[in-house]
Amino acid sequence: MSSRGVRHDSMRARNLAVVLATIHRSGPHTRAALAELTGLTKTTVSSLVADLLDAGVVTEGGAVRGGERGRPGVAVSLSGDRVATLGLEINIDYLAACVVDLTRTVRLRRTIPADNRNSDPARILAALRDLVKEITAASEDAGLRIIGAALAVPGTVEGEVLRSAPHLGWRDVRVSGLVDLPFAIDNEANLAALGELWFGSREMDFLYVSGEIGIGAGLVVGGTVFKGTFGLAGELGHVVVVPDGPLCRCGGRGCLEVYAGQDALLGDLPSVPGLVARLESGDRRAAEACERAGHALGVALTSAVHLLDPGRIVLGGIFAPLFPWLEGPVSDGLGARLGQMRGAPPALVVSGTGADAAVLGAAGLIIQQILAEPVQMLGL
Amino acid sequence: MSSRGVRHDSMRARNLAVVLATIHRSGPHTRAALAELTGLTKTTVSSLVADLLDAGVVTEGGAVRGGERGRPGVAVSLSGDRVATLGLEINIDYLAACVVDLTRTVRLRRTIPADNRNSDPARILAALRDLVKEITAASEDAGLRIIGAALAVPGTVEGEVLRSAPHLGWRDVRVSGLVDLPFAIDNEANLAALGELWFGSREMDFLYVSGEIGIGAGLVVGGTVFKGTFGLAGELGHVVVVPDGPLCRCGGRGCLEVYAGQDALLGDLPSVPGLVARLESGDRRAAEACERAGHALGVALTSAVHLLDPGRIVLGGIFAPLFPWLEGPVSDGLGARLGQMRGAPPALVVSGTGADAAVLGAAGLIIQQILAEPVQMLGL
Repeated sequence: MSSRGVRHDSMRARNLAVVLATIHRSGPHTRAALAELTGLTKTTVSSLVADLLDAGVVTEGGAVRGGERGRPGVAVSLSGDRVATLGLEINIDYLAACVVDLTRTVRLRRTIPADNRNSDPARILAALRDLVKEITAASEDAGLRIIGAALAVPGTVEGEVLRSAPHLGWRDVRVSGLVDLPFAIDNEANLAALGELWFGSREMDFLYVSGEIGIGAGLVVGGTVFKGTFGLAGELGHVVVVPDGPLCRCGGRGCLEVYAGQDALLGDLPSVPGLVARLESGDRRAAEACERAGHALGVALTSAVHLLDPGRIVLGGIFAPLFPWLEGPVSDGLGARLGQMRGAPPALVVSGTGADAAVLGAAGLIIQQILAEPVQMLGL
Repeated sequence: MSSRGVRHDSMRARNLAVVLATIHRSGPHTRAALAELTGLTKTTVSSLVADLLDAGVVTEGGAVRGGERGRPGVAVSLSGDRVATLGLEINIDYLAACVVDLTRTVRLRRTIPADNRNSDPARILAALRDLVKEITAASEDAGLRIIGAALAVPGTVEGEVLRSAPHLGWRDVRVSGLVDLPFAIDNEANLAALGELWFGSREMDFLYVSGEIGIGAGLVVGGTVFKGTFGLAGELGHVVVVPDGPLCRCGGRGCLEVYAGQDALLGDLPSVPGLVARLESGDRRAAEACERAGHALGVALTSAVHLLDPGRIVLGGIFAPLFPWLEGPVSDGLGARLGQMRGAPPALVVSGTGADAAVLGAAGLIIQQILAEPVQMLGL
């Protein structure tokens, strides 16, 4: 709870957010229905809706429903026409950007293949800045106003500092000056979890497991990402599977990544589609690699379930195309180890979003901020 | 955010909570200072303070400070005279109760030694009900009104059901009818973490590790316990240390409890003080048992740090008296494994509360509810 009392000047801000959240959650609604749902008077609702119309946040006439006493009314719904947000991603082998409007429709999408392993941060950030300029211009051409941006990175983040991204070879890189707008930066697994929440299954409680060159996880509880104390939670890839196992590039031993990261899974194969093709043709070595990875995932996820208590487990990233071969060993491990402490292990499912999860989650994060604080974000 | 707009009738409830929270956090304060701190008018503050005085929640005259313009004023502070809460605990070898007043002073304390292993829930709950009656009567004699109670149990809890307490031998036990008051039940490690927060170090961010016959943990982030999706988070005792290790009574293998639970630590010794005496006399087998337990704790806590991202690690319960012998191996393990992913491993410290942590946390939980919702809890 904030330490300030409620006065009338803060009521309008809060009530605007309540009306907008109601339209977002269950709209379209007539003004009369909004009054009923929010407990506000019809006069107050009409004044708030007028402000939201002016700002291009909502639109009228999308649908017509009966009002409280059956009278017809003009329905108000979220507008995708003017307000948009920008999602950005720096990954090991590409840069990505997408523009999403307020109705969570993807409007623009760009991907630039790149080799960012052990790269120079200044060079990559300059390339990303060019991408931002280009997609912002294209958005303006489409009549969209970008309100804010968020960036997904394959590493740990504190504030606006990328603390450690071992595969990029970056440490303590401050990311600023990308946009002159509200800006956020977060770990790709956290943002991919939000992508799954808003653009994928729309379940409210799950652990999203992001399989890439590294392995991360984002825990969503009641629709919110759990981030820990310093924003460093969910580093599933470095959960200990075998205490005296092989050295991991994090400095530890026997971490999950050593057994189930992309490099361990691929061996000398060039790509994940190549691995899938081998698996489909019944290749024995490929099947054994998946079996080993699935076994290690079962051990690490057992520890994760005991500590994090997720509603379900969603396998994403490269684990999504490999799900048919991973599901058995992972489920067996969870079932054998978790049996007596819980009614049943959490359900194990495959992600509904593709490789886009993180960049979608980044754009969605700013939409969430607009819905939570429309006055601050839109200058209403 | 709730889906309801703010109307005047809910403003009083919220403003009462804001004034009370301000007195609690930084009081005593004069009415003028409270107006300044909360942004409310002096008239509003005076009316709210009058209600709080009537309810016995605050008291006047504890101190006098200058007001905004240096004029003297009567200071208002929390009152320990009338409002109190009840903490209860069922542990493997005792029942406990304590009464804490609103200033978080312990007023009454009872412990009944018992052998609750593989016990009949109805018999134990009847004994606890007798304890509640006795301590409630003693509270009334002291002029205290008990507003609510919370119960700590050594197992997993969902709602008011003790889902699984393996050492008690209880499964799916519904706990009701103990008190005719607001009531909560929670895992002992979660409540012990709150005990540490409110009655121990008062740090806001830490993982409390509860060493008992079982091992649990409670993560506190920003002063709030993280409970997971179903309230089952923090089961540190069943984090996997060695995937093909010895069977654990949870059905898994190589869990932390197998290496660092009380039974593993004591071996054939009768008690923790007995073990401490051996350690102090330089007994080699006792030292080796601590070394093994510390090594296993280092592995499990590495996984916990990666997943939960705690501010610091607090060793409590039986790990507190054993801290001098555990600190080295645990720190070494964390340092070696966590080095490159973070600036440094979280600090490792010993708990500031004794065996009372859980029962104190239980009483404190209800105080927290009173401070958050004084209108609902006190019928103001």
